[in-house]
Amino acid sequence: MSTRQFGAKISRNIDPELLRGEGKFTDDIPLPGALHAAFVRSPFARARIEAIDTSDALACPGVVAVYTCDNIEHLDRELPLLIPHPSMNNARTQRPLAREDVYYVGQPVAMVVAVNRYVAEDAALLVDVDYDALDVELDMEKAILDDAPLVHPSHPNNIAADFTQVSGNPDTAIAAAEHVTKLRVQVDRSTAAPMECRTVAAWFDHVSSELTVWDGTQAPIGVRGGLASLFDLDEDKVRVIAPHVGGGFGQKVMFPYADEILVPYAAINLGKPIKYIEDRRENFIGSNQERTQIHTIELYATKSGEVLALSDDFLHDTGAFIPYGIAVAQVASTSIAGPYRIPNIRVRFRAVYTPTVPVTPYRGCGRPQACFAIERAMDQLADELGIDRFEIRRRNLIRDDEFPYARDGLLFADGLQVKHDSGQYLRALEMAREAIGWDDFPAKQAEARAEGRYLGLGLAFYVEGTGLGPYEGGHIKIHPITGKVYVNTGLAGQGQGHETSFAQIVADQLGVNVSDVIFREGDTGAYDWGVATFASRAAVVSGNAIYKAAKVVRQQLVEAAANMLEAPTDEIELTDGYASVKGTNRKIAYSTIATATNPLRYAFNEAAQIATQFAPASKHDGPPLAEGQHPGLEATDYFSPSCATWAYGVHAAIVEIDPVTCRVVFHKYVCIHDCGNMINPTIVEGQVMGGLAQGIGGALFEHIEFDDDGNLTNANFVDFLIPYATEIPDIEIQHLETPSPLNPLGVKGVGEAGCIAVGATVASGLADAVSHVSGSKFHYTPVTPDMILEALPQGTAQPPD
Amino acid sequence: MSTRQFGAKISRNIDPELLRGEGKFTDDIPLPGALHAAFVRSPFARARIEAIDTSDALACPGVVAVYTCDNIEHLDRELPLLIPHPSMNNARTQRPLAREDVYYVGQPVAMVVAVNRYVAEDAALLVDVDYDALDVELDMEKAILDDAPLVHPSHPNNIAADFTQVSGNPDTAIAAAEHVTKLRVQVDRSTAAPMECRTVAAWFDHVSSELTVWDGTQAPIGVRGGLASLFDLDEDKVRVIAPHVGGGFGQKVMFPYADEILVPYAAINLGKPIKYIEDRRENFIGSNQERTQIHTIELYATKSGEVLALSDDFLHDTGAFIPYGIAVAQVASTSIAGPYRIPNIRVRFRAVYTPTVPVTPYRGCGRPQACFAIERAMDQLADELGIDRFEIRRRNLIRDDEFPYARDGLLFADGLQVKHDSGQYLRALEMAREAIGWDDFPAKQAEARAEGRYLGLGLAFYVEGTGLGPYEGGHIKIHPITGKVYVNTGLAGQGQGHETSFAQIVADQLGVNVSDVIFREGDTGAYDWGVATFASRAAVVSGNAIYKAAKVVRQQLVEAAANMLEAPTDEIELTDGYASVKGTNRKIAYSTIATATNPLRYAFNEAAQIATQFAPASKHDGPPLAEGQHPGLEATDYFSPSCATWAYGVHAAIVEIDPVTCRVVFHKYVCIHDCGNMINPTIVEGQVMGGLAQGIGGALFEHIEFDDDGNLTNANFVDFLIPYATEIPDIEIQHLETPSPLNPLGVKGVGEAGCIAVGATVASGLADAVSHVSGSKFHYTPVTPDMILEALPQGTAQPPD
Repeated sequence: MSTRQFGAKISRNIDPELLRGEGKFTDDIPLPGALHAAFVRSPFARARIEAIDTSDALACPGVVAVYTCDNIEHLDRELPLLIPHPSMNNARTQRPLAREDVYYVGQPVAMVVAVNRYVAEDAALLVDVDYDALDVELDMEKAILDDAPLVHPSHPNNIAADFTQVSGNPDTAIAAAEHVTKLRVQVDRSTAAPMECRTVAAWFDHVSSELTVWDGTQAPIGVRGGLASLFDLDEDKVRVIAPHVGGGFGQKVMFPYADEILVPYAAINLGKPIKYIEDRRENFIGSNQERTQIHTIELYATKSGEVLALSDDFLHDTGAFIPYGIAVAQVASTSIAGPYRIPNIRVRFRAVYTPTVPVTPYRGCGRPQACFAIERAMDQLADELGIDRFEIRRRNLIRDDEFPYARDGLLFADGLQVKHDSGQYLRALEMAREAIGWDDFPAKQAEARAEGRYLGLGLAFYVEGTGLGPYEGGHIKIHPITGKVYVNTGLAGQGQGHETSFAQIVADQLGVNVSDVIFREGDTGAYDWGVATFASRAAVVSGNAIYKAAKVVRQQLVEAAANMLEAPTDEIELTDGYASVKGTNRKIAYSTIATATNPLRYAFNEAAQIATQFAPASKHDGPPLAEGQHPGLEATDYFSPSCATWAYGVHAAIVEIDPVTCRVVFHKYVCIHDCGNMINPTIVEGQVMGGLAQGIGGALFEHIEFDDDGNLTNANFVDFLIPYATEIPDIEIQHLETPSPLNPLGVKGVGEAGCIAVGATVASGLADAVSHVSGSKFHYTPVTPDMILEALPQGTAQPPD
Repeated sequence: MSTRQFGAKISRNIDPELLRGEGKFTDDIPLPGALHAAFVRSPFARARIEAIDTSDALACPGVVAVYTCDNIEHLDRELPLLIPHPSMNNARTQRPLAREDVYYVGQPVAMVVAVNRYVAEDAALLVDVDYDALDVELDMEKAILDDAPLVHPSHPNNIAADFTQVSGNPDTAIAAAEHVTKLRVQVDRSTAAPMECRTVAAWFDHVSSELTVWDGTQAPIGVRGGLASLFDLDEDKVRVIAPHVGGGFGQKVMFPYADEILVPYAAINLGKPIKYIEDRRENFIGSNQERTQIHTIELYATKSGEVLALSDDFLHDTGAFIPYGIAVAQVASTSIAGPYRIPNIRVRFRAVYTPTVPVTPYRGCGRPQACFAIERAMDQLADELGIDRFEIRRRNLIRDDEFPYARDGLLFADGLQVKHDSGQYLRALEMAREAIGWDDFPAKQAEARAEGRYLGLGLAFYVEGTGLGPYEGGHIKIHPITGKVYVNTGLAGQGQGHETSFAQIVADQLGVNVSDVIFREGDTGAYDWGVATFASRAAVVSGNAIYKAAKVVRQQLVEAAANMLEAPTDEIELTDGYASVKGTNRKIAYSTIATATNPLRYAFNEAAQIATQFAPASKHDGPPLAEGQHPGLEATDYFSPSCATWAYGVHAAIVEIDPVTCRVVFHKYVCIHDCGNMINPTIVEGQVMGGLAQGIGGALFEHIEFDDDGNLTNANFVDFLIPYATEIPDIEIQHLETPSPLNPLGVKGVGEAGCIAVGATVASGLADAVSHVSGSKFHYTPVTPDMILEALPQGTAQPPD
């Protein structure tokens, strides 16, 4: 226990339970007598609803209710715009159930509640909706043209937002440039595809007038506030529990999905518990997605490769609605300059409505697109100027002595100025160069080419503003019975390992084993102040709040122990759940201290009997609790970051094209990353590896495909290609730890890091592999075998023998 | 709203719900699939158990389990001594289920769990227990003799505790006295007889490992701590809810009754919800009782009636066990000098085991006995010295300028010195004298006597140490959605009207209507620090904690409003749920302020949209929450009294004996009382009236009767005589308000006050009524018609025509 827990490679304590199948997901919650919901969803991307006839469905035995826009009372409204922004002059949000119009395939039109899911689904098929289909345009570049069919005809075009940010003086810099490189890149649409689809169950207790909702959400506190408001309940009367949740990746942070309000509504309305467990097809067609952006980026440079100015103009596909505002596009636009000291920037985006499922943040949230744009551009600039790709980056990277590095004029998603707080960008680049073996690579590549093989080295640098505010809180209590430490916060976990990493923060402060720290999140009944889990913010914001609270409890422990052991506070040591006097064998268990510091005795507790031996002799001198004191060992504190803290890293890969299948073979993949001080390198590596795997999916396999009518044609795991472990290479991770000066723990977020640079790295490697034979620059992800085939000289690809 | 709520006669807001039958008592909690428990109880006061055969019961269809001491694992132990004290050298506590011996009729021997209560009770009759009955002695004065049968044979006598306290120098004072009056008085055993018997239901959720217990207890936090300890669970994993509870009066504060631990145990053990609702007979034979004390009191006085010394030696019946220690006897012994300036006191008590249901505090807790002893003694002293009964009290009362008046050497039940903090005793006496019409009474009495009627005036003064620590807490939160104020504390209510009186305290501080304050108690899930409701302490301890918390929230409101309205804090007024700038029409609703002070926005909330108009322009200048600030409008604070605060009062009654039935007719009953500042005079009067009614029951009707074998012979409401409204006279209540200097609100407890002086008042009046014909001094309560008959001249009582 003298070992420091912060920074130790400790196994995730949640895993045994999850791996044994003992997780408690929403569908595992026992709700005797629960009804089940199923949705009728639009089969058209755009259509008018002429009529809805629910009579056949209602007549179906076992059906309890069928809800349409006509019988959901005050819920029949446009849902609120969660993040307003002045750049939106046509912000449209969805109704829980469609009224008159449908805007994407999969939009909920009616909800059927029945005794079980089978009946509910069968009855949903009996709801007769009379649609009148309308024209659609799925291609963003066509959708912004004057004659395009409109998603929302009340507005003259499909532009949801149009926003330009400027840093420095780009016009002057552009005029001074000696070289300009320009390219058009596109990252296409994908989806989070969490292992567990979305879930919601609700029960309204008419005895206590309390609404309990189990929601596989990333934001139980937000859901609680929203439901309380919608149903005009006091927040204390609404408890939202996010039980175990099988992955979120941003898809589960948006509130509300129709089911998240209609299931509680029906539970109140019908007086029965109700469950809705989204199926995989529904997750594909009904739960939010992200990624499609088309960037036209220009770099203005000197001949020696110093970038003087950056101009980017991109289209951002926001789907049929824009409930989350411009969050994704704004993150992309403020990440566009990557790690580079580019003093002059102009970045414009237009968010474009398409008749598709709405777009909200998915792990990476605009950063993969920005990284793809700037890194493909840096490669092209290097090529055009004849400069080595590592070297051109080295010349432009923000230097160590330039931190904190602010980008005047660029406001991040939190509304605050972009400011890279700390880093060792040059060192990270050098580490990547060495790790990937750049010095030896040209010889290897030449050798391969001589053998007719296509070997390339890819490279990409990424930055990530993490740890957004406004705040989180932490509550810590040492229990008198067991002496164990309970830690509560307002987050919700979807597999990140909070149970372990937050325990490590507390264990050090309080001198206990990590196994004696019990972390709770995702339950507004346990802690109800805070925001949510998103934006790689948990460790930064909650972690520091918990750390601050732990320091308060540490002080309480030391003072109480000093009093009970009759020693000065500076002679008290906290180790292994005991407070002791340095250099003596006098010690007391925390359970005893926790008992003694609550003037109410627990007669059943052995600790109480021991505590009486230490009861302060001053008992009769004043009130048992002095003014300002509170009973027990317990504290709550908050952390509110002044702005985002910027993590970063470099990916490099050696790839080879399999000429028979046109698949990509990874010979080596290195990842240098810096998320400040690491709480638990095992968990950091897990996050990086997971993100990287998801990034490889996005780079090579995963692609939401719409036909011309807006039907999602691969809404299943046979056609939507998630990589298996067999597709993920061995990845060599190297850590750098540059503490953030913005928070006491010096940590930065790591949840999204892994995925950001993969597309850019893979494209860089493929372009390098074919650079001697092809003009293809790989400006599009995911990269398909067809694209690779096209990049190879005709006749290269050979069918297997 | 400019009217002050504190002190206003506001109707109890809980009553409509309760009167309409919409209360939610334990038996109303829906627990689908719950099993039901019934107990096998000892039919012997003392016996050896030779064998227990549960096989027939287990074979009964519908029976799920039968528990005896042999299959309850670690629960088969002597339960803890809740309040230890060095005066006990033979402290014995009960086992949950009897092992080898039973010690009173009604003691639990086995618990049967079955599909419903009918089956459980039928099966309980099939449990075959082989008893070997032992000798018993019910009479305390015989039980302390050498040859008495022993309740606990491991100890040489039946003395559970022997304790003497001394104040001043009684030996010297006794030697100096000119007159001594000596008498033996007895108050006999009664029971709380709450409208709802005790209840417990439990459910262990194996998914979350959380134990939820609904317990009709006065002390949910204590029960939570005890259960957590017994089952080695963290306190966060145990939630104890005291729902609506139909009266407690002390009987429901003791933990644990066997059912309170065995029902949760079985719920864990069997994996099913389990309910146990005590029936009336069980409440009589199985739930704790109080009162029997035999005092031998001596007053040493001057001829002018100044009492120099008091000596009291009393026997206290503690029943078969002493789980609560000497609490009742200690309260009696430290209240023995009443309101009188008696500088020299010696008081000894012996707590005596009798083979009866255990004795723990019942409303009054030793005070009615002490009041009966000292007030009967003062009457006798007055008689003997030929001094008017008001006058002798006037001569001895503590004078206004003597407060605070300490009794050196006497430690109250909280272990702290007895110190009467404030009062106007002389004024109270004078008010009683006037109200009862003392000046006119001699003439009325003479007239009555001339008519052969027996008219008497009774009189008694009482004091009550109230508001014991150690502490309570209060939590206040203003909700963003509704702007309503939630107030939580660790108490539990059994009908006291906390919902109204605590709301009044908060309403004044926060400028809201009482109807917008929602008070919650009795749920460790809502607030889990604190002690319990007993000892007339709720208003004093929780009331002041809530007041302190309200002041913090008031300050938060003022500061936030000043910031939002851009006005100095001293120009902000809080009225009707709005903060406004004095003399202007600029105002904001609390819901808006509560929303704006939480940096997380609720997009659904209209208040949020309004709040954005007031959002501080300083948003970008620093973190949304400054260091040390917390989100929202919320505070927790604690109050820990330095010692008890002493309430007091005077009762006076004019009574007449109905010579036909020997019942007592009240012509007039006045009650002067002073509980410091009154939060709500309506509730104070209700408490006083309720206590007085219960006191009249104890004075004249209610009597637990044991036969020589220790069988309780009147364990039902036919034979145990609770007075109806018809037996309760009109009572004239007059208030005095002498603030306590010991707490910010200046309040004193009032919950037990009403009952304390009734026995002494009635006995005083009856003795006065017959003083011309009888030597009977009425030194025993309850006073039965037989006793009255005996006090009348032979032949006086006439059967009706």
